[in-house]
Parts: sequence; C-alpha cells; structure tokens
Amino acid sequence: MSSLTSPAVSLADSPAVERGMPARRLTDVEIFDVHVGGKMAMVPTVPMETMADLSRAYTPGVARVCTAIAQDRSVFDHYTWAARTVAVVTDGSAVLGLGNIGPRAAMPVMEGKAILFKRFANIDAVPLCLDTTDPDEIVETVARLAPSFGGINLEDISAPRCFAIEQALSQRIDIPVFHDDQHGTAIVTLAALRNACTVTGRTLASLRVVIAGAGAAGVAIANMLLDAGIGDVVVVDSQGVLHASRGILSPIKAELADRTNSTGISGSIVEALVGSDVLIGVSGGQIPTEAVAGMAPGGFIFAMANPDPEVAPEIARQYASVVATGRSDYPNQINNVLAFPGVFKGAFDAGARHITSEMKLAAATALADVAADELDAEHILPSALDPRVVPIVAAAVAAAAVQGR
Amino acid sequence: MSSLTSPAVSLADSPAVERGMPARRLTDVEIFDVHVGGKMAMVPTVPMETMADLSRAYTPGVARVCTAIAQDRSVFDHYTWAARTVAVVTDGSAVLGLGNIGPRAAMPVMEGKAILFKRFANIDAVPLCLDTTDPDEIVETVARLAPSFGGINLEDISAPRCFAIEQALSQRIDIPVFHDDQHGTAIVTLAALRNACTVTGRTLASLRVVIAGAGAAGVAIANMLLDAGIGDVVVVDSQGVLHASRGILSPIKAELADRTNSTGISGSIVEALVGSDVLIGVSGGQIPTEAVAGMAPGGFIFAMANPDPEVAPEIARQYASVVATGRSDYPNQINNVLAFPGVFKGAFDAGARHITSEMKLAAATALADVAADELDAEHILPSALDPRVVPIVAAAVAAAAVQGR
Repeated sequence: MSSLTSPAVSLADSPAVERGMPARRLTDVEIFDVHVGGKMAMVPTVPMETMADLSRAYTPGVARVCTAIAQDRSVFDHYTWAARTVAVVTDGSAVLGLGNIGPRAAMPVMEGKAILFKRFANIDAVPLCLDTTDPDEIVETVARLAPSFGGINLEDISAPRCFAIEQALSQRIDIPVFHDDQHGTAIVTLAALRNACTVTGRTLASLRVVIAGAGAAGVAIANMLLDAGIGDVVVVDSQGVLHASRGILSPIKAELADRTNSTGISGSIVEALVGSDVLIGVSGGQIPTEAVAGMAPGGFIFAMANPDPEVAPEIARQYASVVATGRSDYPNQINNVLAFPGVFKGAFDAGARHITSEMKLAAATALADVAADELDAEHILPSALDPRVVPIVAAAVAAAAVQGR
Repeated sequence: MSSLTSPAVSLADSPAVERGMPARRLTDVEIFDVHVGGKMAMVPTVPMETMADLSRAYTPGVARVCTAIAQDRSVFDHYTWAARTVAVVTDGSAVLGLGNIGPRAAMPVMEGKAILFKRFANIDAVPLCLDTTDPDEIVETVARLAPSFGGINLEDISAPRCFAIEQALSQRIDIPVFHDDQHGTAIVTLAALRNACTVTGRTLASLRVVIAGAGAAGVAIANMLLDAGIGDVVVVDSQGVLHASRGILSPIKAELADRTNSTGISGSIVEALVGSDVLIGVSGGQIPTEAVAGMAPGGFIFAMANPDPEVAPEIARQYASVVATGRSDYPNQINNVLAFPGVFKGAFDAGARHITSEMKLAAATALADVAADELDAEHILPSALDPRVVPIVAAAVAAAAVQGR
C-alpha cells in the first residue's frame, strides 16, 4: 500500500491561485484522511427520542401517510425525501481520467458528487455504483429505482454507451435525467465561451470552433454550441476530422458529422485548427504546438483534460487571448460544479420532468451573467464558491422549464 | 384530502404505558407534520468550505483514493461510506397491514426504517422502493446495486415471493441480506418466548406451540423455533393446520409441513390449539375465544397483528399467563426494532458476509438476556429505547459470526 503513504503532487487552493501564487500541493495523507469512513452520512430530520416520536415517524403513525400517498400520488413529493433526492449513478466505466475501474473504485467520486449536491444546492444525493456495464441493464435498473428519487445524475459512464443510456432513461421515466459529463461540461463551456466573446468584443455566431474529442463531453459541447447558434463547429476524434464521407461512423458520430463541419474540412487536428478561433480540448490527448500555431490570432483555447491539458497553458497563452483549463490551479477553471447543482435545483423547483435544451442554454447564459461584473480574460467564469451561482442558475433553469410547457 | 385533516386514533407513548395509563392518541396533524419533506437527509462529513477542501474530497484528490481501491479492493470498506450503509429495499407489495400499495406509498415506512437504523445502530441507510414486483427483477436489481452497500434489508415484500428473493440474493451477493419481516420478527418472538419460559419456570423444549399464519413471519418463526430446539410446532394457515397430506402445498409450506406437526394434527385453529401451551398470531385474522379457551392453562399468547391483535389482550389474559402483542400501548411489545439494528451492527462489526441461523439465535438469546434483571410477566422484553439492547445484541451476533467461520 505504498500509494497510501507516499507524498503526492495533486494541486489545490484557490486563494493562492487568485493571488497568482503557485497552489499548495495536497499530500496523499491528507487526501486519504478525509476519506476514512467515507464522506457522507444519513441523518434523521425528525425527533427519535421517545416512543411517541417513533410512533409518529414509524408505526403506527406512518401508516396514515402511506395510505394518503396510495390514495393520491400527488402528495408523495410533499411527504417523502424522494422528490428532492438525486441518485448519482455510475457503472465505473469512465471514472475521471482513470478509465474503467469498476463500481467500487468509483464510489469515492460518487460520494464526492453527492456531497457537492448537498453543499451547493441543498439537494440530498445517494451514490449508486452498479455492478453492470450493459446499457440495457443499467437502464432497467435505474428505471426500477426511479420511484425512490426526484432525479438521476448519470456520472462517469463511458461513450458511446452513455448516449443511449441517457436517451432511453429519459424516455422511460418521468424524472429529470442528466449525464453530467456531457451536459454539465457543455453548459460551463458555453458560459465560458460567451464571456470570452464579451471580453474580446466578439460574437458567438462569428466563431470558428474546433472541438478535439468526440466522447461524452465533445458530443454534448458540439450539440450545445450548435443549439446556441454557433454555425461553424468542427469535431476531431482520434481518427481526424469528422465528416460525412469519412467512412463508417457510429450513429452518434454520423449524426454529429451531419450537423457539423459545414465547410467540409478533412484531415487531422492540424488542418482543422488552421484559421480557427476556438480550440476546445476534451480528448485527453496532447495537441502539438505547431497545430495551435495555425489558429487565427486572438482566439480562445479551452484545454480541459485533467491533470494534463491538451495544450500547456503557458503555450496556449502565446496563441490565444483567453485560456481556460479544467484545473483549479490555473485561471478560468471549467468546473462542472458551476452547473449541475443549479440545474437540478431549478428542475426541482419547477417540477420539471425532463432537462431540455432550453433549460441547459438558460443555465449557460445565467452562469455567464454571474461573472459579468468582474469580467476579464482571466475571470470568464465565477468561482465555484461564489454563492450567487446556484440561485441564479436555478432560477434561469426553472424559468426555462416553466416557459417550455 | 380529508384524510390529512381528520383526527386519528393511532396510539403511542410508552411512559404512559409503563405507568399503566392509557396511551395518548396521535393526531393526523402531528403525524403528517413530521413527514413534511421526508424524515431524513444526507450530510457531508468532511469540510466543504474552501477550494482546498473540494480538491481533497473531490477532484483532483479523490483520484488517489479511487486508484487505491482499484489496486486493492480490501481498502474499499475503509475509504467509502458503503460498507456500513444498508439499503432498505421494498417493492411495496406487503406494507404494514396495508397490502400491496406500491413503491411510492411504501416510502414513508422505508424512510422510517432507515432512520431507525441510524438512531439505534448508527448505521446509515438508504430507502429504495422498486418499481417491479417480479422476483427475478428484484433479485437482479439488488444484485447490481450491491457494490454500493454493506448490507441489504428487505422489507414489506409479500410471501411467498420474499422467500425466493432472499434466498437467491443471499447466494448471489457477498453482503448480508436480511428480510426483517421474517427474521427480525422471529428473533424478537424467540427472545420473548425464552423469557416467558423463565418467568413461568418452563423450558422451551417442553412447549407445544401453535403459529397462526404462514406468511413471512409465520414461516420464519416456525423455522427459528425448530432451530432453537422446540420440537412441537404446528402451523395453521387460512386453510387450516399444515400437514404433509393436506393436498397441494407451495414448496415453502410443503417444507414447513415436513418439519412441523410431528403429532399429525389436522383441522382448524380450534383443533390445533387444544392442549397447546403457546399461540403465536402472525396472521392478521381474528381467533375466536372458544379456540383460545382450549389451550392448556398457564400458557402464552403472542397476538402480534397490528392494529388489531388476533386475540384481544383483555381476552388473552383470561387464558394465558403471559400475553404479548405488536402494539406499543400494551405490555410486551414484539417490536422488530429490538433486533435488526443490532443484527446488522454485529454482522458489520464481524465483517460477516451472511446472516446465519446461529447469528439469529445468538441475537434472540442476547435480547432475552437484556431483560433478565427486571423480568416479570409484563416485562419479558426490554424497551425499544433501552440503550443496552443494540450493543449486547450486536456483540452476540458478531461473536456467532466469528465462531461460524
């Protein structure tokens, strides 16, 4: 177990970042200490001290509440914890950058996600790590669990299975289903892009965007940018630029090829980036400096792979006017925690049964607006700890949900 | 929604019971008030205030813990909440005495069970109400969820499906599975029977026992009494006394008919009770006074149906020296909360993978012993609030688990 005791090189500490100082390094010891016994607990919210307390919260009193729900399902949300509780569901197949490490090794991430829900949106959440990677089995398992929850946050499920799973679940159950690796990332990316435009006096519609990576995040970002009115989006996967005549493509990539690359580019990331305004890296691979050098001047580079961005920020700054990463130790962190708590809170507040494109676009716009008063090239997004984020995003999402009815 | 506002006649308040006074009645208003928003919440147990806190509990720090678990599954229990968390699982098919009211209407009971786990054994628990009553689907759903939990408490699943579900799950997953309606009830019943013997100077082995009801509780009680060395057990279902030549029996009842009724009685509850020492009612039906009048003098009547015992306690006292019910407003309440928290705590403490007969018998003996110092005919069981119960039961269960290896 040497990995439990050796010093680590993980990075943290935002105040230092904001002062422009190098972040303090986390040690393995402090990381593992925080995890002993897990990071969450369940607590009763009603008195449990006397027999009368037990008689109200359990038998015989509870039978009255059960009967009321059996007679009128509409009171279920009012008298149980379920309606405002999210299941954080994974199969452990694409955990962080660690790949398919299985359901048990994924649990610390799902617990972490659950406590972020509580911390930022006061939403209770339960981590569920499934012992199957079969899409149909995942769908039927979650569908059978649906009565116990108000929403389903899918997490760290590998592409392309994640697309079919989310779609099938959304059709089958009547509570919000949201694959955060797709849509959380896309919402924050669009917000960042919107504010990068504001800082540099550009418009979204004028941008030529290249997305490196066609996994969960890449696909969702491409679709969201198109929904937001960006016409020129090119997606590059490990085989090169996606275009309709490239050969046999998966259904998801074929659909993406149809919707993107309106100018008909082919080739590699090098060809794709020539003259482009925006590079969004969600691939995990490295992008050579020569390729980045071909971008149009004054553009944006969002290199979001963790822990190693596709383009080192120091290099990216030489070729772009706005640089963002997925890391907390550089400016402009693209961090999903800016989106998912407010998205679910807004959906719950509005009683929404689905998370629509309009709700996601509203979340991105609202998130961008939160940063508006202190905007510059190194502050295109609010801090994850900014207390304004969740209420503002939630209000926008709820309004979009209500308007969509 | 008149049921939400009309006054109720539910019963509670143990101090009054202990002073021999009538229990105060719960009103619907106070019951429903306790249930607004549900009865439980999830809380983080680690700091979440600074970016450094988030970096330890979530990314990037959490990746170190995930990697450690992926490399060595044995550290999973130490670094997650899962190992000491119980899933309280139902399909809503046999909720309290309300029958098949479905998963949503069952939720208040499952939340109640979850908070009892926390209150009495400091075990976190999550209520899961499944949208299926198919036994195979329940088994596969719970099996897929197993990596997220340290134990499975099956609850309010109707007989005979509950038997096959518990058996299949116990064989398929390597964490304790315990159907409380069966084994919790059986443990407390055996403890009560043991102390009723002590109070009256009898021995378990000498008893002639009649069990009215062959559902989850009746089957489990019969099996447990046989395991405890009571030779003469007769089970009566709605068709009369179970015996091997009665005609077509379900597999469970056929097995029970083989193991019980060694004297070959046939007929109804009236014939069964003639000369018997003990009546255990777990049927919900009423048993006529004439039948009870046939029992041998000085016996025991445990009439456990809620809210209406099979024999009214006032009548039972005329024909038996020890009377118990399932109600909190009469002496000698047979209450499962005396068993399941300690059983799971003991199993967890010992790292047990199954709940064996030996562990259940140990729980019953330990529970009986807790009441030993204040034993009389109206105090054959400790109070549910007696703080000695859970540690003593848990220690006995853990010891039996270790001894069984």
